Amino acid sequence: MTKGRLEAFSDGVIAVIITIMVLEMKVPHGVDAAALRPVIPVFLSYVLSFVFIGIYWNNHHHMFHAVHHVNGAVLWANLHLLFWLSLAPFVTGWMGENHFAAVPVAGYGSVLLGAACAYFILTRVLLRIHARDSTLAKALGRDFKGKISVLIYVAAIPLAFVQPYISCALYVIVAAIWLYPDRRFETLLMQ
Amino acid sequence: MTKGRLEAFSDGVIAVIITIMVLEMKVPHGVDAAALRPVIPVFLSYVLSFVFIGIYWNNHHHMFHAVHHVNGAVLWANLHLLFWLSLAPFVTGWMGENHFAAVPVAGYGSVLLGAACAYFILTRVLLRIHARDSTLAKALGRDFKGKISVLIYVAAIPLAFVQPYISCALYVIVAAIWLYPDRRFETLLMQ
Amino acid sequence: MTKGRLEAFSDGVIAVIITIMVLEMKVPHGVDAAALRPVIPVFLSYVLSFVFIGIYWNNHHHMFHAVHHVNGAVLWANLHLLFWLSLAPFVTGWMGENHFAAVPVAGYGSVLLGAACAYFILTRVLLRIHARDSTLAKALGRDFKGKISVLIYVAAIPLAFVQPYISCALYVIVAAIWLYPDRRFETLLMQ
Amino acid sequence: MTKGRLEAFSDGVIAVIITIMVLEMKVPHGVDAAALRPVIPVFLSYVLSFVFIGIYWNNHHHMFHAVHHVNGAVLWANLHLLFWLSLAPFVTGWMGENHFAAVPVAGYGSVLLGAACAYFILTRVLLRIHARDSTLAKALGRDFKGKISVLIYVAAIPLAFVQPYISCALYVIVAAIWLYPDRRFETLLMQ
Repeated sequence: MTKGRLEAFSDGVIAVIITIMVLEMKVPHGVDAAALRPVIPVFLSYVLSFVFIGIYWNNHHHMFHAVHHVNGAVLWANLHLLFWLSLAPFVTGWMGENHFAAVPVAGYGSVLLGAACAYFILTRVLLRIHARDSTLAKALGRDFKGKISVLIYVAAIPLAFVQPYISCALYVIVAAIWLYPDRRFETLLMQ
Repeated sequence: MTKGRLEAFSDGVIAVIITIMVLEMKVPHGVDAAALRPVIPVFLSYVLSFVFIGIYWNNHHHMFHAVHHVNGAVLWANLHLLFWLSLAPFVTGWMGENHFAAVPVAGYGSVLLGAACAYFILTRVLLRIHARDSTLAKALGRDFKGKISVLIYVAAIPLAFVQPYISCALYVIVAAIWLYPDRRFETLLMQ
Repeated sequence: MTKGRLEAFSDGVIAVIITIMVLEMKVPHGVDAAALRPVIPVFLSYVLSFVFIGIYWNNHHHMFHAVHHVNGAVLWANLHLLFWLSLAPFVTGWMGENHFAAVPVAGYGSVLLGAACAYFILTRVLLRIHARDSTLAKALGRDFKGKISVLIYVAAIPLAFVQPYISCALYVIVAAIWLYPDRRFETLLMQ
Repeated sequence: MTKGRLEAFSDGVIAVIITIMVLEMKVPHGVDAAALRPVIPVFLSYVLSFVFIGIYWNNHHHMFHAVHHVNGAVLWANLHLLFWLSLAPFVTGWMGENHFAAVPVAGYGSVLLGAACAYFILTRVLLRIHARDSTLAKALGRDFKGKISVLIYVAAIPLAFVQPYISCALYVIVAAIWLYPDRRFETLLMQ
């Protein structure tokens, strides 16, 4: 089974998710700059979610570049990941509209945690059908970033009830960890 | 006529359907966990519909992998299937917002029935232009899952007026039947 | 310049148009079958628009199958067509919500007329860069269906102010003309 | 790393952006032509934004046709461009609903400026990994249109507070500059 259509479908779903999130930013009715003020928290959570969805697309792109073949289990593990990502517009709007209150911030973290676990499951399902010395296996390696992200989310969710901004800072740190250039796949694929 | 663009267009439509369904989950205005309570039934019907659309994408992907060529009738049979799937966001929102009341649950089943019939028609139209010993014909075989699904839907729709949760349980059973690994295509394509 | 990305982009835009139209069908709050009554006219105009967008995708698919190369003018002529099609969700919702009143029905026809003219322009721009004996030129031929459609729209728009249902009947007739199998491209491409 | 999936993802995002903008045109409830009057400014800003997004897609298409390979930096520079474009539906709706008032017009210009800068950054990141005598480098040349656009936006944003229609006229001029056939890439690619 080839990976082409799985990539195309994932691209389509991620493209829709990243774009319809902007619909949560309701057009203000006022005409002065002050009318934008209630939009600011929604805008900030939109930026954060855009970066996260961008990171997932990037990682998905890189990983599947090294994938040689897929099977039915991969299709479902991939749909499972897309399911968690599809909840992003909902929690983004909820967190933004409520000015980063405790429960929505914890809910946002839970969706990020779900997506991170789904991505981890996807890597395991892919590794099961690839050889130990395959490009994919070498490129994924110990998957340090994936594991540290899960740990940070697990800490951030309860911390939201202490001080939501700590959780938000932790989400930004996870995004920064991923944005920091990760040469794993690029290095291996160029060999 | 090649199947590439039909696959790409179907992927696009299914990607949009599976993603805009989440827009039916209206962002709650409250900041406590209780604010999520009215969203729960919509969320549950979203999960069910996500799984159904995922099953259709999976089956579509597998079937067209075995398809050799298409004609104008296939394009329209495919659009007919996409039409029924495009009604999923509507019935999902209706069923969820009304907490699984009888009429919306029956309506949801009718859309599932319509999609199942459309898929059946699509297989017939495809078989008409493929040889009896083609990979497609062998892979579709007796199409047991397709037929049993239609029967369950036909039973579930009137049962919604007795007890909607019975119908919902039947929809979950159909999803489970399809999720149970179906090696028909995979086995044949690997030979 | 290759046509691949133009096809992919058009597929994407048409896939989004055909799917977001369903968002104009607002989920009813009632739980009985009567709650569906106000949705019926919107549903009917949704079905009509779905068929029209499907016809455009089909024709686009067939025509570009015979296209050999594209240039900058083709890209813009294609975007012009997509512009008119993108207005379909708006006029579909307007016509449906107002139960096929005169002005919305005329507006619906105007968008169909705009799309038909845009499609005609696209064929001219394509013919200018293809030889007279190219597959494309032969397949387009006299373009009878395209011309008769424009004439019917021109008649249907003013007739909406006499009796909107006459206009609606004319739109259905145009759809039927196009749905009637058109072997032009298929016949030529199989030679 | 190949450019195929980057192009497909960008096509998907741009296709969704250009189409969901139409959702900002709320379906009017009236049935006479006067009901359309409040929609006119939203329609005009929709047309302007459709043309701008069309120009970006066109330029993106042409430029990536000449691109030979991409790296991680290109993926992010491209996502940065898509981020600015994704704000188009928001500012389009805001500018249209407020009948081209000063602040929304300036906001619209800021998003155009952001997109123009993001496109400029994308060209620099691409040039860094292509040879000086590559097709891409030759085709981009001095990038006169890109630079003049940025200058016009920088002038148009403050001018919105003097007279918004001057800014709107300047936006239309930028669109016209880009619509005027640009043979740079076409000429070079045909050699």
